[in-house]
Parts: sequence; structure tokens; C-alpha cells
Amino acid sequence: MRYDDLDGLLEHIWNYIESGVIDRANAMTTPAFATAGPEGPNVRTVALRRANRGSRALIFHTDARSNKISELEETPSAVWMGWDADSSEQFQLRGRTTIHRSDEVAATMWASLPDDELAFYFKPKAPGTPAEAPGSGIQPGAIDEAEARRNYAVVRTVVDEIKWLYVGRDPEEERQAFYQWDGQVFCGEWVVP
Amino acid sequence: MRYDDLDGLLEHIWNYIESGVIDRANAMTTPAFATAGPEGPNVRTVALRRANRGSRALIFHTDARSNKISELEETPSAVWMGWDADSSEQFQLRGRTTIHRSDEVAATMWASLPDDELAFYFKPKAPGTPAEAPGSGIQPGAIDEAEARRNYAVVRTVVDEIKWLYVGRDPEEERQAFYQWDGQVFCGEWVVP
Repeated sequence: MRYDDLDGLLEHIWNYIESGVIDRANAMTTPAFATAGPEGPNVRTVALRRANRGSRALIFHTDARSNKISELEETPSAVWMGWDADSSEQFQLRGRTTIHRSDEVAATMWASLPDDELAFYFKPKAPGTPAEAPGSGIQPGAIDEAEARRNYAVVRTVVDEIKWLYVGRDPEEERQAFYQWDGQVFCGEWVVP
Repeated sequence: MRYDDLDGLLEHIWNYIESGVIDRANAMTTPAFATAGPEGPNVRTVALRRANRGSRALIFHTDARSNKISELEETPSAVWMGWDADSSEQFQLRGRTTIHRSDEVAATMWASLPDDELAFYFKPKAPGTPAEAPGSGIQPGAIDEAEARRNYAVVRTVVDEIKWLYVGRDPEEERQAFYQWDGQVFCGEWVVP
């Protein structure tokens, strides 16, 4: 597409993000997820599990004891970011994040997990805890499934702001758009990149 | 390499990071750079320009008027993060960041810029400013080289903490190491991933 129409571009952005859940070549499949932590900002790669334009929601899951969770409990604002080196596009999505442990959101996502992913939650010691030797910390026999389930959390961000950047081969091709949710729709404008 | 030796792994990590400056297939070539902003965390992709194990320094450059700069002036703590999907490794580097505009660091980096990259600094309006139409904002005739030079800043982070994560195909292969600078050396330990 030619990037010169704000409505068409917004359509393209959401199509791209929603494709991230299934298309492994997409930059939103494993985006950077930034939070505010006690030592300043923090960022790590997460796996996008659900994306929905209608609800503006992006979802990943993680160990409920990880530092992402404690950081989000303190500061729920988060940014998801993907950089597609092939198409030279950057996607930045800011929103408010909620944590789901024992509600229906968490139960539905837990039920959808394949067996090999359940394994990640069979860790008696929390992520970040010192370990005597290199290893995953997974010990299926040491804890039962109910405890593994308690180690599981779903993280859901409702997007309020979208920043999109295109970097051409020629510096003069560069362009940037910024969208803000006004309660009804995303209002877009071009900005200097 | 087999990841079971903390000293060998640290060597591997720095070799990898230093290679990011020249090897375009490397995840540290265009890492995520996270800062603390007024609305919470922020993160974008930057281009790694210099990396040096001896000085523990990582460098990129940007428009001095961009929000990265104002965010770092407020909170100098930053995290660089690269995710290598091929080797299933994640690199996270936290440190204190300094901004260089008119000192020797900035002058040396400015002098090393190829002509096509100089173009980025010929923008009369600051990045993030609303624009009437999609475009780069670059106007070579509108400002002179001295003004372009004033729009240029070098951002340098001295790394204090390194977190390295390996995610195998099998969840049980996962492992994580954490290193902290003690004033003399990086002290490493294994942690639960």
C-alpha cells in the first residue's frame, strides 16, 4: 500500500497486528513489551497470543511471579513495540494493562494452552530467583497442577495510542503517523518522524 | 557454544553485542531501547553505532529534540534489548545514559556520518510535531549545516547489568544468567528463567 491515507493506514496497522498472532514472520509475533520498574524502564520480548481490533486488546501470558507482573501492578501503563526490518515499519502501541489470574480471561487462556507450554508453570522457584546451576527450574513432580495454575497470569493491554513509523531507503521517504483513541475512534494525524 | 559456564557466556555476550555494530543479521544491530517517559515507559528501535566491552558502552544517535532525549534528561536509566529468533537468545542491558551534544563524543560521531544520514538532521520542525502532510520533514535548504548539527545528539549508555535468556525448543532447555558490574568485573549468577 501507499502510506498517504490515515484511515487506510490504520486498517493496515490493525491487520498487521492481528496477523501477528498466527504469522511467525510478523514483527508483532514477538514484540518488545516495556514497563516501568523500580530501577527505571524495563523491556523484554513477549509472545503475542491474542490481538483484536474491536476491543483494542493485546494479550500475552507469563509467570504470575515474574517482574513484569509486579511492575504492572505498580504502573499499569505499557508499550508494545515491533520493528519489521523487511517492510521498514515500526509499530508502537501504548495502553493500560490489566492482570488476570483467577478470572474467566485467565481460565480460557489456560485451557487453550498446549501441554508443552503448561510445563513453564511447573517451577517451584519464582523467575529471577538465584539457581545453583543453569536450568529451566521446571520440576513437574515437585508441584501439582493447581499450583502450576496459580503461577499463571494473563496480561491484557487496551490500546489508547498508536505510533507508526516508516523508514525508507532514502531519508526523505521517512514518515510517521500518530493515532489517539477519543472514546469512539482512533483519531490520526501525520507527525514529523 | 554450550551455555553452562558463566565466564564463557559473558565472553559470548560481549562478542555478540560488539558484532551488532557491523553484522546486520545480529539482534543487537537494531535493538529496542526503553526509557521512562511522562506517560510511563517508552520503547523504540534504535541503530547500535558503537559497542565496546572495555568501556561497557553502547551508543546510538538521534535528533536532539526527540522525546528519547527529554525522557533521558529526566530519568537516565535505560535498557537495551535484543531478541535473536534464530539462536533463541535474549540480551537485556541496563545502564546509566548520558547525552552528548557539543562535546568531543558528539563531534567525533557527527564527523563519521555519511552524507545520507546527515539528511535526517535537516528538519526545521522537531520530531513528533504535527505535520500537514505525510513526509520526512527534511528540508535541506531551510536550515544550514550549523543548525542541523545542533539537532544532533549522541546517546551513550554504560552497562551495569546484563540479563541473558536462552529459550530452547523444549521448555526444559530454558536458562537465564544475570551479571552485575561490581566496579571491577561483571559478577554472574544463574537464575530461574
